[in-house]
Amino acid sequence: MPATGSANIGVVGLAVMGSNLARNLASREGNTVAVFNRSPERTHTLTSEHPEAGFVPSEGYDEFVASLAKPRTAIIMVQAGKGTDAVISELVQRFEPGDIIVDGGNANFHDTIRREKEISSTGIHFVGMGVSGGEEGALNGPSLMPGGTAQSYETLGPILQTIAAVAPDGEPCVTHVGTDGAGHFVKMVHNGIEYADMQLIAEAYDLIRQGTGKTPAEIADVFAEWNTGELESYLIEITAEVLRQTDAATGLPLVDVILDEAGAKGTGAWTVQNALDLGVPTSGIAEAVFARSLSSKRAQREAAADLPGPAEAWKVADGDADAFIEDVRRALYASKIIAYSQGFDEIVAGAEQFGWDVHKGDIAKIWRAGCIIRARFLNRIAEAYADDPSLVALVVAPYFRDAVAGAQDSWRRVVAIAAQAGIPTPAFSSSLAYYDGLRAERLPAALIQGQRDFFGAHTYKRVDRPGVFHTLWSGDRSEIETTPSSH
Amino acid sequence: MPATGSANIGVVGLAVMGSNLARNLASREGNTVAVFNRSPERTHTLTSEHPEAGFVPSEGYDEFVASLAKPRTAIIMVQAGKGTDAVISELVQRFEPGDIIVDGGNANFHDTIRREKEISSTGIHFVGMGVSGGEEGALNGPSLMPGGTAQSYETLGPILQTIAAVAPDGEPCVTHVGTDGAGHFVKMVHNGIEYADMQLIAEAYDLIRQGTGKTPAEIADVFAEWNTGELESYLIEITAEVLRQTDAATGLPLVDVILDEAGAKGTGAWTVQNALDLGVPTSGIAEAVFARSLSSKRAQREAAADLPGPAEAWKVADGDADAFIEDVRRALYASKIIAYSQGFDEIVAGAEQFGWDVHKGDIAKIWRAGCIIRARFLNRIAEAYADDPSLVALVVAPYFRDAVAGAQDSWRRVVAIAAQAGIPTPAFSSSLAYYDGLRAERLPAALIQGQRDFFGAHTYKRVDRPGVFHTLWSGDRSEIETTPSSH
Repeated sequence: MPATGSANIGVVGLAVMGSNLARNLASREGNTVAVFNRSPERTHTLTSEHPEAGFVPSEGYDEFVASLAKPRTAIIMVQAGKGTDAVISELVQRFEPGDIIVDGGNANFHDTIRREKEISSTGIHFVGMGVSGGEEGALNGPSLMPGGTAQSYETLGPILQTIAAVAPDGEPCVTHVGTDGAGHFVKMVHNGIEYADMQLIAEAYDLIRQGTGKTPAEIADVFAEWNTGELESYLIEITAEVLRQTDAATGLPLVDVILDEAGAKGTGAWTVQNALDLGVPTSGIAEAVFARSLSSKRAQREAAADLPGPAEAWKVADGDADAFIEDVRRALYASKIIAYSQGFDEIVAGAEQFGWDVHKGDIAKIWRAGCIIRARFLNRIAEAYADDPSLVALVVAPYFRDAVAGAQDSWRRVVAIAAQAGIPTPAFSSSLAYYDGLRAERLPAALIQGQRDFFGAHTYKRVDRPGVFHTLWSGDRSEIETTPSSH
Repeated sequence: MPATGSANIGVVGLAVMGSNLARNLASREGNTVAVFNRSPERTHTLTSEHPEAGFVPSEGYDEFVASLAKPRTAIIMVQAGKGTDAVISELVQRFEPGDIIVDGGNANFHDTIRREKEISSTGIHFVGMGVSGGEEGALNGPSLMPGGTAQSYETLGPILQTIAAVAPDGEPCVTHVGTDGAGHFVKMVHNGIEYADMQLIAEAYDLIRQGTGKTPAEIADVFAEWNTGELESYLIEITAEVLRQTDAATGLPLVDVILDEAGAKGTGAWTVQNALDLGVPTSGIAEAVFARSLSSKRAQREAAADLPGPAEAWKVADGDADAFIEDVRRALYASKIIAYSQGFDEIVAGAEQFGWDVHKGDIAKIWRAGCIIRARFLNRIAEAYADDPSLVALVVAPYFRDAVAGAQDSWRRVVAIAAQAGIPTPAFSSSLAYYDGLRAERLPAALIQGQRDFFGAHTYKRVDRPGVFHTLWSGDRSEIETTPSSH
C-alpha cells in the first residue's frame, strides 16, 4: 500500500478539460494537486507550462496514489466509456475504504449507477459528477453536479466550492445533487435543455431574418437588446457575437459561410431516450435533437430542395418589423419556459425512479453561472420551487403562468405565420402544442383509447366511475367491466 | 434425444395470441400443430374447445419436442422478456442442428440479435418474428415479419404463407425481412407508425369537433366518407366505428365517456429511442408518443387546467364547415405521408446499421393486410420503391410529392388555425415543420454550429471549401483550419 502524500486532490487525464480543471484546483488556496496522465508527455507539458500551480506529477498509478493525502480524492477526466472503467479499476486496486473516486467525464448515468454499485462494497466512494461550462468553465469556474454518497460530499464539497462558478448572489454553483447517478443524470438534462434553447434561438433568428430581411449584424443588435431583459443568458449573448462576426475570407456574415449541418455529441438524444423510459413528454428537446439530425441529412435535403412551399413569399409589412420582432421575442420566452418545464419534469421523474433526493431549486441555482444555459431566468425557477417545493410543473407557477399569459398571443401569431410562410419552427410549434395539450380540458386521447380497445382489447377507463372497461366490438357491442389487459 | 413426431409445427405459450395462432395454423391444409403451455389447463382448454384442430398436446418439453417432425419448428408466443429466454433455453437443450425456434412475441430487436448470436453456434436457427394484427389477426391472418437466416425461411416461409393475411392482390402478408433482429425491428417501426397514425386521426377529430361543433356520430360519417378515398385504412374505418358508438349507461357518445388518458405498451417509445440512436428524425412518432404520455399526467393537467388560452373561442364560420373538413383531410394525408416517410427512413437506417438486406417495397406490401396500419396508401409506397429502389425519402417520390403539393395550402391553414385557436396538434405541426425543414435551402443550423464553436470549440464546416474550421472566439477572432474536435 503506497504511503500518504501531500496532495489533497488528484486529477487523472490531462486533456484540455482535465488540465484546466487541475489548474483551477491548483489556483485555489489550500489545494495541492496531484496530476497523472497515461502518456507522460501531457503531464510534462502541463507542469512545465504552469510551474506556478505547484503540481505533484506522477508517471504511474502507484506513484500517483502515493502522492495523495488521506482520504484520497481523485477526479477522473478521461473520455467517457471503457477508458473510464480502466482508470477506475487501477484506482480501486490502490485506494482504501473512505477514499473518493470522482468521474468528471460525460458519463451516461446508467454507467455511473453501475459503477457506484460495483465499487460500493470496497468502502471506496464513487462519485459521478457532471461538469458543465466547457474548457473555459473548467479553468475559471464550472457548474458542478456531483452525485454519490452524502458522506463523500463532506470531503468533496469544500474543495468543489472553491473551484465552481459563482452565481451573481455569491453562491458557488455546486450542490450534492443526489446519490449514485444523480449528478450525471442532471447534467444530461442540462444538455437536453441546452439543445432546446439553442434550437429556439435558431428559429427566432430564422424568422426575423426571413420576415424582416435584416442582416445578421442587425439581428445581432436585436439579440444584444434582448440580452438586457428577461431573456438575458449566455446563449443569447453569444448568439449576438456569432451573428456579428464577419468572415475574413469572403466579407460575408460568418453565419452565411458556415455549413448548415448541426453536429451533436449524443447527450441530447440520451435526454430524450430517458424521458421516453420515464414517460415524460420532452417534445421541445426531442424536436431540437431531430432538427439537428435533419440538418445533416444532406442527400435527403438535396432531393427535397425542390419540394413546393407556399405559393407566395412572405415578408413582414413595412413598419411592422418591430412588432414582429417583439412577437418572436415573446414566443421565444414562452417556448423556453416550456422547454425548462419539460426538463425539470424529467429531473423529477428521474429522481422518483432512481430514489434521488433532488432539490429542484438548487439545480436551478447551480446552473446560474459556469454552464452553457446560465441565465437570469434560472432565478425565477429557483424562486418557483422555493415558493412551492411540490410544484407539479414549472409552467403552472404564478410567475411563469403570467409570463406565458402575456406572451401567448404573440406565440400563437408566430407559429401561425411560420406555418403559412413555410419557415420550419419545430420547437416553437411543439412547445405551443404541448402548452395547449397540458391545459386542455379534454384531449382526443379518449378516441385513441377507443381505437386501442377496438383493435387490441386494451380496455379503457370511464370519466364517471372507477373500473376498467371493454366494449365487445366484434360481439354485440355491449360494455363489460374487466381487469386491465396484459397484452 | 426424443423421437420424431407427427407435427410439422408447434406453438409454445397458449394465451390468446398463441392459441389463436395455433388455431390459424391448424386450420390450414397439411399442418399438424403441437401445442404446449407451462400450465396445462390452458392446453386442455384449447384442445377441448377446438377438437376440430387436431392439436397434438404435450405436458412437458420432452413430450412437446418429441411430437415435432424434423426439422422441428416451434413458435414461441409468450410475454416478451425473461419468459422468452427460459422457453428458448428449454428448446435449445432438446433441439438439433437445422431445427427452428421462432419467437413470435413482441421482443426488442436488440434481444433478438443477442439470442440469435447465442444460439447460432448450436446450428439451431433462431427467428425473431414480428406478428401484427392482434388477437383477430393471429386467428384469421396476421401480417408476419420474420427475421433470421434465409435458410430457416425455406422451411418456415411456406408454412407462414398459409396463415398470413392476404393482400387485395392475393399476395400473402409475409416476407423474409432480413437476418437476426430485422423482423422485430420492422415490427417496432410498424408500431411507431401506428402511434403517429392514431395521433393524427385524433387531432383531425379534435379539430373538426371543436371547429364545427359536429357530434361524434356526425364525425363518424366524415371518417366513413374519408375511408372511401386515398385515406382508406383500417384505422380510419375503426375510428368511424368508435365515434358512432353510444354508451348504453349514459346515452352519451362513448368517446365522451372514455377517460382521455392514453395508454401505451412501449414499442412507440422504442421506435423513437432507436431513431435517436440511428440519428433519424422521427418527430411525428415522437410527438405521438409524447401526446399519450402528456394525456396521462393527471396531476399536471389538473394544475394546468386554468392556464389561459386564446381570448376568443374559435369556430368555423357558418357555411365553411365542409371546406374546413376538407382542409383537415388534406392535412391528415400530408402528415401521414411524413410519418411514413420518417418510419421508412428508420428502417433504411436500421438495415444499414445492422446489415440487413431489407426490401422496402416488400415491407409496404406485407403491411397491406392483417396489421393495424393496413391501408390503400401502402400500395403507393410499394410502387414508389419499385420505381426507384434507391429513393432517399418517400416524400420526394413523384406520387407523394404531388400529394403533398396538393395538400400543403390546407395543411398550413390547419396548423395556423390550431395555433391560433389553442387546439393542440403536435403531430400535424411537427410534420409540417419537418417538411419545411427538409425542403429548406438554408437552415439556421448554421447558427447552432456557430454557437457550438463559440462555447465548445466544436468547429464547423464551410459552404465554400472543404475542411474543418474554428474561429478563435476568445482570441483575435480569426479563423483557423483544424481537425474535428473530439469533445
